[in-house]
Amino acid sequence: MTPRRIILDCDPGVDDALAILLAFATPEAVTVEAITTVIGNVMLDKTTANALRIRDLAGRSDIPIYAGCPRPIMAPIERKQSVHGGDGLGDIDLPAPASAIEAEHAVDAIIRIVRNNPGQITLCPIGPMTNIALALIKAPDIAKLIPEIVFMGGAAFRPGNSTPAAEFNFMIDPHAAQIMLTAGIPLTMFGLDVTAQALITKRWMDTVEAASGKVGRAAIAMLRAYGFGDPCLHDPCVIAHLIEPSLFDGVDAWVEVETTAPLTRGQSVAAVAPRHRPGHEPNCRVITSLDSPRLFDLLREKLISLG
Amino acid sequence: MTPRRIILDCDPGVDDALAILLAFATPEAVTVEAITTVIGNVMLDKTTANALRIRDLAGRSDIPIYAGCPRPIMAPIERKQSVHGGDGLGDIDLPAPASAIEAEHAVDAIIRIVRNNPGQITLCPIGPMTNIALALIKAPDIAKLIPEIVFMGGAAFRPGNSTPAAEFNFMIDPHAAQIMLTAGIPLTMFGLDVTAQALITKRWMDTVEAASGKVGRAAIAMLRAYGFGDPCLHDPCVIAHLIEPSLFDGVDAWVEVETTAPLTRGQSVAAVAPRHRPGHEPNCRVITSLDSPRLFDLLREKLISLG
Amino acid sequence: MTPRRIILDCDPGVDDALAILLAFATPEAVTVEAITTVIGNVMLDKTTANALRIRDLAGRSDIPIYAGCPRPIMAPIERKQSVHGGDGLGDIDLPAPASAIEAEHAVDAIIRIVRNNPGQITLCPIGPMTNIALALIKAPDIAKLIPEIVFMGGAAFRPGNSTPAAEFNFMIDPHAAQIMLTAGIPLTMFGLDVTAQALITKRWMDTVEAASGKVGRAAIAMLRAYGFGDPCLHDPCVIAHLIEPSLFDGVDAWVEVETTAPLTRGQSVAAVAPRHRPGHEPNCRVITSLDSPRLFDLLREKLISLG
Amino acid sequence: MTPRRIILDCDPGVDDALAILLAFATPEAVTVEAITTVIGNVMLDKTTANALRIRDLAGRSDIPIYAGCPRPIMAPIERKQSVHGGDGLGDIDLPAPASAIEAEHAVDAIIRIVRNNPGQITLCPIGPMTNIALALIKAPDIAKLIPEIVFMGGAAFRPGNSTPAAEFNFMIDPHAAQIMLTAGIPLTMFGLDVTAQALITKRWMDTVEAASGKVGRAAIAMLRAYGFGDPCLHDPCVIAHLIEPSLFDGVDAWVEVETTAPLTRGQSVAAVAPRHRPGHEPNCRVITSLDSPRLFDLLREKLISLG
Repeated sequence: MTPRRIILDCDPGVDDALAILLAFATPEAVTVEAITTVIGNVMLDKTTANALRIRDLAGRSDIPIYAGCPRPIMAPIERKQSVHGGDGLGDIDLPAPASAIEAEHAVDAIIRIVRNNPGQITLCPIGPMTNIALALIKAPDIAKLIPEIVFMGGAAFRPGNSTPAAEFNFMIDPHAAQIMLTAGIPLTMFGLDVTAQALITKRWMDTVEAASGKVGRAAIAMLRAYGFGDPCLHDPCVIAHLIEPSLFDGVDAWVEVETTAPLTRGQSVAAVAPRHRPGHEPNCRVITSLDSPRLFDLLREKLISLG
Repeated sequence: MTPRRIILDCDPGVDDALAILLAFATPEAVTVEAITTVIGNVMLDKTTANALRIRDLAGRSDIPIYAGCPRPIMAPIERKQSVHGGDGLGDIDLPAPASAIEAEHAVDAIIRIVRNNPGQITLCPIGPMTNIALALIKAPDIAKLIPEIVFMGGAAFRPGNSTPAAEFNFMIDPHAAQIMLTAGIPLTMFGLDVTAQALITKRWMDTVEAASGKVGRAAIAMLRAYGFGDPCLHDPCVIAHLIEPSLFDGVDAWVEVETTAPLTRGQSVAAVAPRHRPGHEPNCRVITSLDSPRLFDLLREKLISLG
Repeated sequence: MTPRRIILDCDPGVDDALAILLAFATPEAVTVEAITTVIGNVMLDKTTANALRIRDLAGRSDIPIYAGCPRPIMAPIERKQSVHGGDGLGDIDLPAPASAIEAEHAVDAIIRIVRNNPGQITLCPIGPMTNIALALIKAPDIAKLIPEIVFMGGAAFRPGNSTPAAEFNFMIDPHAAQIMLTAGIPLTMFGLDVTAQALITKRWMDTVEAASGKVGRAAIAMLRAYGFGDPCLHDPCVIAHLIEPSLFDGVDAWVEVETTAPLTRGQSVAAVAPRHRPGHEPNCRVITSLDSPRLFDLLREKLISLG
Repeated sequence: MTPRRIILDCDPGVDDALAILLAFATPEAVTVEAITTVIGNVMLDKTTANALRIRDLAGRSDIPIYAGCPRPIMAPIERKQSVHGGDGLGDIDLPAPASAIEAEHAVDAIIRIVRNNPGQITLCPIGPMTNIALALIKAPDIAKLIPEIVFMGGAAFRPGNSTPAAEFNFMIDPHAAQIMLTAGIPLTMFGLDVTAQALITKRWMDTVEAASGKVGRAAIAMLRAYGFGDPCLHDPCVIAHLIEPSLFDGVDAWVEVETTAPLTRGQSVAAVAPRHRPGHEPNCRVITSLDSPRLFDLLREKLISLG
């Protein structure tokens, strides 16, 4: 099998870090053309530093990192609290970045890489979709050059986590999510419908830690500082899907996001029944189920393999 | 136990008819002070005729029936299709009404009965909440005289049925639902969260029919003409709860309904976590689970008892 | 000429009081079938008391007064401040009401009188349109029995006064305004477009006061306590139009009111150009100009005539 | 006086063309650092070609032109009809562009020029504000480097022209307008409040044409093909203000744009009275009046001066 070439657009974030490490650990399935960063779990300076720190940890200086948008489309925000700790990676004292980002803006890197590789680059946004949306506004021609977007965001058939109506990534930038959803690009959605099922257990963490080298142990240390109660591995599901699609199943739907109403802002609305989407073919494969034991086996194996 | 005195506000509708019959069959638990009708499953002339026909069927001419609002608050609508058949009761050739409604408007009957019986009358809206809302606008003083509203409507933690976001009763008149939800009256919500679990089976219908007299057989005939595939007994849950609360369980939440945005219009949004409802104490007990075998046993027993 | 038979739906309010007095003073042109009151300039208890006080002042106990809705459709409000003074009539020490309201609710009085006099009763709402809207929801059949609604509210072609977008009556109950506007009844709109031109001058007040008896002097006393700077005679324009339509001119438009967006809530939007109202014939005559000298001459003459 | 250094962000468009020519004709007051183009009056390929054609006409190949966004933020649009003719410049057979645009995207040119000239560059958007908004999202740091934005857009105190509520530039991209308005940059607004007063007369066109060379005659030919009835010179007002601020007067206000409600989408709402803007200092000088004779004298003189 030829590896999928991806741009990983992220806001690390502990589960983003796991997604990055999972991609790094699976070159036979995934080629990371670029990591692009965005405001989200923490402010942009931290998400960018964290991408660098994870790249340093894994010794993958060959992967270019581009910093993106420091604010969502409609208004600046201030991220003060996070389930990802003060630094966004669980405050486990990872070293400061030893390497540097590229000069190019993430939005432009996305446009350039997609244009230079028509039909070849899958976008994988696992944070707010601001970079993706700006690329589509600046250069709408790229839409037809992107074979697929596999993203973490939304909650199609259940409540949100940031608000009763909205999942975090869609809540932070609902306009960006809507721009992505309506761009005519084939979409695969990992929303809370499925990612909330990817619950990490203490036993699994213990097992991975005992068998891991430096990288896996750092990953587990971050996870131990992450989330409330039983945390969910939202973002790694996107990468796991590229590696092994048979882990997941879902339904086709027309998905949009509410951008106008305060009460339901950021909510994803998924029309499955034909009568609920007059004039709209499904734009999205909404993933709704996973094989949890196999997913966590895959993650364990890959984290251990990183040394 | 003293029977609960209720006003049953409805839009029959097959499952409304079952709710009415269940209330009639359980005088030890429920005293129906009045039946009030509203536009909903079919137009008002039909929902009112249907209330009369069910009353005739059960021989309960002692229960007064009042016709209410022929339109939702914000705009007239035309109901052309329904899962309840052309006449709203499954087209089973129930006789035309042999009795007549009261002269008083349902909105005024609600106000009068509540005022005359302070603290005594539980409202049970199982259709769009237009009558309830108009009573609260005309006479806000009644809010503090109503001990509880137990209603069928909304979908707190799952998608809707009329649209991906909204349940039918809330979709038809979201403004009325919001007025009811924010009136300061203790609320118990039977939304799709629980009522979609009340699935009728063919086997159950066969059993009830075989053991029933005229009334039960008519009820089952309506049910056989109702819904798509496996239909749900939405409305009778409200009455079953008055008879036997232990059949159900739920959570406390602050519930509102979206009235402003086309995409999410009519959606109920339920905030359970304290961080999701700054400044709002729970206004509603949201029922989320039921003991289905016991519910259907209760319904079977009561339908058979009607002869 | 046969007098126009009207129901004057109001929230007195100083300019409402002037409108009432103007109607009382002009029996040859206007027959007041009923005065109905609503929350608005002050709370309902005060607007109702004020209607009674004005009726007492004018000695017109033959005109029945009905109290209406104490809250707008979507949410209760608290009126704490008003340009109409603490009591709503400029705190000029008018005596407490010596007479009493009718038992019937204003909403029901409107429905009854309209039904009993098909095609005969012009509605004149000069406060928030809550009573009118509730009558149309309870009894939509009355729409075709009402020959015209002449109302004070909105601002079709200029900013509002309650907010930059909205005039007071439409702001207090935008949903009621929208229900009235879309009911299919011929409409004549006196919004700020014209009423803001009806500026009272000190000279005019002095002239009227000098020539008046008790009633006219009380009216002027109220006016002196009303408004900021040069106050406007909004509400009397509606009655003046019934007396002498040639005082005013306007344009036909399709008018709606914004009910959904916080920023523009209560704004009236008037489409005049055909391309701006696809599918909509004009629903409203929007009055945009007045003959101010003749209007104030009429008012002076009528106030003096009341003794 | 030192000339103001500007970036002219435009969507030519006949009145845009006049604005460009007016800027070219007044080097003592205005230095055009760059012309950037955006979708608006016509599609981007045409607005960009038109900017080049006007530059060719005026022989100003020293001014760089950058193409910007081909769509508004929230959704692609198709511009099929325009008051600017099929080609956007009145179909007067201007030659095809003989020169070429720069390679850099307008959004990036704006960011780069502003960053390289902190505090020096006034932005003058006279089309939809998409480029400005994207620059502010990609690089929010530029906000504090921009001394002023003088823009054509909105209608603060009167109806719109694209819809009853909205002016064209704000209607095409209300989200972009809102991003610009809330960026914390000093703003001067030329909305329809003032630009609708800049009515071109046939007599003025005749006078200018008779005295002009090739450029002025082409400008007048475009104007003769522009608009319905008496057309307005919206965009040149922005440049005229930079040349001679005393031609205009206005008020300070807090201005926002409606982005959420279909009925009022794109409407500018201006709060002037302190009670209407709790928590908001004015963000904008809203120009409301002009000295029309002096404005048209200035334009005549400058057009003639171009030869």
